[in-house]
Amino acid sequence: MQRIALIGAGRIGRIHAANVAAHADLELAYVIDPNTDAAAAIASSHGATVADLDGALGDASIVGVIVASSTDTHLDFSLHAAAAGKAVFCEKPIDLDLARAKDAAPRFESFGARLFLAFNRRFDPSFRALKQRLHAGAVGALETLHITSHDPAPPPAGYIPVSGGLFKDMAIHDFDMARWLLGEEPSEVFATGACLVDPEIGRLGDIDTAKTILRTPSGKLCVISNSRRSGYGYDQRIEAFCAKGALRAGNVTETTVETWTETGAQADQFQNFFLDRYAAAYRAEMAHFADMLTRGAAPEVGYEDGVAALALATAAQESMRRGAPVFL
Amino acid sequence: MQRIALIGAGRIGRIHAANVAAHADLELAYVIDPNTDAAAAIASSHGATVADLDGALGDASIVGVIVASSTDTHLDFSLHAAAAGKAVFCEKPIDLDLARAKDAAPRFESFGARLFLAFNRRFDPSFRALKQRLHAGAVGALETLHITSHDPAPPPAGYIPVSGGLFKDMAIHDFDMARWLLGEEPSEVFATGACLVDPEIGRLGDIDTAKTILRTPSGKLCVISNSRRSGYGYDQRIEAFCAKGALRAGNVTETTVETWTETGAQADQFQNFFLDRYAAAYRAEMAHFADMLTRGAAPEVGYEDGVAALALATAAQESMRRGAPVFL
Amino acid sequence: MQRIALIGAGRIGRIHAANVAAHADLELAYVIDPNTDAAAAIASSHGATVADLDGALGDASIVGVIVASSTDTHLDFSLHAAAAGKAVFCEKPIDLDLARAKDAAPRFESFGARLFLAFNRRFDPSFRALKQRLHAGAVGALETLHITSHDPAPPPAGYIPVSGGLFKDMAIHDFDMARWLLGEEPSEVFATGACLVDPEIGRLGDIDTAKTILRTPSGKLCVISNSRRSGYGYDQRIEAFCAKGALRAGNVTETTVETWTETGAQADQFQNFFLDRYAAAYRAEMAHFADMLTRGAAPEVGYEDGVAALALATAAQESMRRGAPVFL
Amino acid sequence: MQRIALIGAGRIGRIHAANVAAHADLELAYVIDPNTDAAAAIASSHGATVADLDGALGDASIVGVIVASSTDTHLDFSLHAAAAGKAVFCEKPIDLDLARAKDAAPRFESFGARLFLAFNRRFDPSFRALKQRLHAGAVGALETLHITSHDPAPPPAGYIPVSGGLFKDMAIHDFDMARWLLGEEPSEVFATGACLVDPEIGRLGDIDTAKTILRTPSGKLCVISNSRRSGYGYDQRIEAFCAKGALRAGNVTETTVETWTETGAQADQFQNFFLDRYAAAYRAEMAHFADMLTRGAAPEVGYEDGVAALALATAAQESMRRGAPVFL
Repeated sequence: MQRIALIGAGRIGRIHAANVAAHADLELAYVIDPNTDAAAAIASSHGATVADLDGALGDASIVGVIVASSTDTHLDFSLHAAAAGKAVFCEKPIDLDLARAKDAAPRFESFGARLFLAFNRRFDPSFRALKQRLHAGAVGALETLHITSHDPAPPPAGYIPVSGGLFKDMAIHDFDMARWLLGEEPSEVFATGACLVDPEIGRLGDIDTAKTILRTPSGKLCVISNSRRSGYGYDQRIEAFCAKGALRAGNVTETTVETWTETGAQADQFQNFFLDRYAAAYRAEMAHFADMLTRGAAPEVGYEDGVAALALATAAQESMRRGAPVFL
Repeated sequence: MQRIALIGAGRIGRIHAANVAAHADLELAYVIDPNTDAAAAIASSHGATVADLDGALGDASIVGVIVASSTDTHLDFSLHAAAAGKAVFCEKPIDLDLARAKDAAPRFESFGARLFLAFNRRFDPSFRALKQRLHAGAVGALETLHITSHDPAPPPAGYIPVSGGLFKDMAIHDFDMARWLLGEEPSEVFATGACLVDPEIGRLGDIDTAKTILRTPSGKLCVISNSRRSGYGYDQRIEAFCAKGALRAGNVTETTVETWTETGAQADQFQNFFLDRYAAAYRAEMAHFADMLTRGAAPEVGYEDGVAALALATAAQESMRRGAPVFL
Repeated sequence: MQRIALIGAGRIGRIHAANVAAHADLELAYVIDPNTDAAAAIASSHGATVADLDGALGDASIVGVIVASSTDTHLDFSLHAAAAGKAVFCEKPIDLDLARAKDAAPRFESFGARLFLAFNRRFDPSFRALKQRLHAGAVGALETLHITSHDPAPPPAGYIPVSGGLFKDMAIHDFDMARWLLGEEPSEVFATGACLVDPEIGRLGDIDTAKTILRTPSGKLCVISNSRRSGYGYDQRIEAFCAKGALRAGNVTETTVETWTETGAQADQFQNFFLDRYAAAYRAEMAHFADMLTRGAAPEVGYEDGVAALALATAAQESMRRGAPVFL
Repeated sequence: MQRIALIGAGRIGRIHAANVAAHADLELAYVIDPNTDAAAAIASSHGATVADLDGALGDASIVGVIVASSTDTHLDFSLHAAAAGKAVFCEKPIDLDLARAKDAAPRFESFGARLFLAFNRRFDPSFRALKQRLHAGAVGALETLHITSHDPAPPPAGYIPVSGGLFKDMAIHDFDMARWLLGEEPSEVFATGACLVDPEIGRLGDIDTAKTILRTPSGKLCVISNSRRSGYGYDQRIEAFCAKGALRAGNVTETTVETWTETGAQADQFQNFFLDRYAAAYRAEMAHFADMLTRGAAPEVGYEDGVAALALATAAQESMRRGAPVFL
């Protein structure tokens, strides 16, 4: 059994804790959080112990550390864990500051760190199947990509100022997805946004709606659509337009039940909560981390992927600010 | 231009008149109906003349006669037209009395009659494509068949006593469809029905809901589901279960518009009125009649098909009455 | 923690063992199987002990027994467990012999037995949502029901002679589903079947294809379609036709990916293996058993439900044999 | 009967001729085309006469003129017809040169011209239903719009140099659709394109793939996706994201037939040819022209709409050329 320490006892920490506990090769040993009640609740559910950071990192039996704390601490905790020789499972984003993230890269390298950056959507079975078929070439070479990524409802206003803004907080998933599917680094970003959902978000200096176009050197184009509130649930779709056809991954409904009445056929609502929609993805990424620990698998998503997605998000912010494309 | 006389100026007569008028090779010459106002309305729309039966049949320039009058007159008018040497386009059913229909067969033969029995659903593009693919063998040999045939709303109560009952009036379409797709004559019929929609229909001695199982000598099975009222529109579907897969033909929505809200995705209502749902089929069957007149095409559906469907409907009635399968 | 003994270390036993292990309130204590290797494999995965029946039933700390052994032993093992005062989770069917099952009923009663008969499909989220909406009355009163239940592929020929035949082995799920949804006991059964899939099944005296019509005293009708092999995957659908509309539960695809090419839009294959298709149902029925043990919940499906489903399956066999409806 | 002259006997001219002939209030009187064989073919099908322009415009009985000639003649023929006091039905686009089109506007006004600019997609039943529901407010205020408009296959290379380029030739439909649905004039256009389909198109100085973002003063955003070749048929979809939900209009399949096999469910191919896909729209726009002639209806799409769409197409070209947004 690979012994794991979890840093962060919030919503996403609880998910990771349960997936650690359910995995045959992993054992949750420590939970670390300044909110000791939250840490204790998770620890007691899974037979783990509440610890402080030094205690956990100092325990030589700990081989992996999950960083699920607040965004501004991702980088530091990951560095600490890497310095202690632990494999790191770090929640996205790696940081909100591109320069800081770039600067830290050599330190990770110097530790010989094995860091998995947990972009969960890469582990969604549908998106994964789409990528597989794309690369198997069934519909020819990829030309353009549409990613729709609309949240059911905006976060509490209090979160906006610490979120890093829509591009770094929300669209960063889509920038990672774009890189993963395009198979080529975007060299140009044009982004435009608006505050259409909640004026409070605008007052706080952020936007809630955005459309972004990425362009690669070979002319591949990717459109990303973001909204903080859909009005119809969690909308997570991808369309890949290729030389001989197209691939699409759609939304997931709660059940397969349809109601037919005189006004038409009503399908069930979409799985609405990201922890439901991506439950399989969270399990799969933990299984990947277990593979890293037990079989030495290389991380499917690394530090450099976190930096690259952050670079795109930063470029999108800059593009919107300047009202012009930004070249990378 | 092939000159046509239309007998019957009701709802279905109007449809056929318009399709005659729109066809490049056909010309509507006469309209015959005891209701001369109705006849005149159709005639004036399409540059035709109101006539009586003898006048129309006596006009040597008339090559085709459409029998779209009330069901109890189908047989007689068809015989008259055939006796006058005209090609006949006869609405379904050929008659409500199986013995009478069988008895008349030799007379049609003696006239060398060319009679097309207008089972419109055979000309529906989707059902036709299903049959084509079935016979092309893409999913292997047919094993069983499900036909769903539910009307949006029951006919007026006054129609029930002259309708011939649910099996002869409504399910007869499905018996024809079953024969057409099974490629083998059913040899056993079990039918059961109930009055669940409108008690008045029960008081008039009919049922409004039925499930029928047909069986062929080789063991192929067909289930037919009928209801006089669906509550959700006109439901006309076929599923063909085969050795290597299945084929399905579904309902047609009014438009492709979907509304996504928090309660799910609402597709548009089904095309609800049979004249809309089967508009293309009515056009296609008239084109087939034109082919009979201009190119000598053999009728795709003949008198014997009308008799065979009526025999199944009669057997279904008998099965329900006796509470046992009826063998043919 | 409620301690559980599992009788039967086959495919379905492994599923139940894993669901016991994953449930917060349950603990797998013993595994009993004449194949001690199989028993040991399951026991070691979940920290349980291989035991014999008397040892397990004699342990007063055991509160629940799962009977997942071969069908012919369901009744006896359930009786033993009930006699020992344990709550019983029994796999379907309760037995293959209706008289024997009826005879045993008083003994269960005399033990005050709490027996849950595990008709897993009642716990499928989609079928459950369908029933809920049906009973909430959103589309009015139920009139007729269509249950499609086609397996991806026939069982090995060797299983046919001990299976009890298609109606008792396979359709019994659908008879239970029909009773559950109709809300009224069927009073008439007409079944017809054929051997269209595999002649070997016919040589062994069974059928592989069947269509059954159930009728209730109030005239509600239910059609059940069974096939041992679909050619297109595991087909498990329900349509409920009601006074003001219809409800449908459809199949589940492996992923949401669609491939669009010149020949049309290809959706992903259906979840093909019953253990995948009903994974959530197996988890939910174990949660229900936990509720019985921890909170004294009454079994949602009881011994009498097993007898009633078996009575319908027996009537269907009799109907097919006699070529006539059977009245209950 | 309103007598009509048709200028242009090509593919789209034939469509309009047939729709004139089929309309109860319209009569095709003249067909004008330098290719007199083509003109004669259409004329003879519908009982019309081949004429020259002066002859047709000089006939006082002619009330409407359909301009379906090559794009570079739309403006001149429309002016001639308007000068002669005829109502004009002009194919899109009004012209390829924005300045020329703007310059001509006062002349149309001076003639008191009634010109209908035939943007057929506004008359598509699904897009029309989408707009209706959007404006009925069922899902709240429109925020953003996605228009997918991919052709099945590129035009012959010889057409590219006279087409005006992708934006004026193809995307102009989408610019019109965007204006119609946004309910607000776009004030900013960013377009980017590539030559990914056919290098010959690139050699001829055009692109075959484009993504465009429109922005309105209130911050509404519209994304338009264009491709000259889809690989999967004619793709014409709209998604309207609103405050309380979304509306979508999808593609139309040839039939409703689905094939279910072990690899999944295959839906039928999309209606692939624009004359099929928009057949109902072409009929409806002719009915609208008839309304203009018989009941004095105001044109639903006017000269100014043609100019506005051309302005957006011109801005998109400019944006792509400059690699920056263009403000209107």
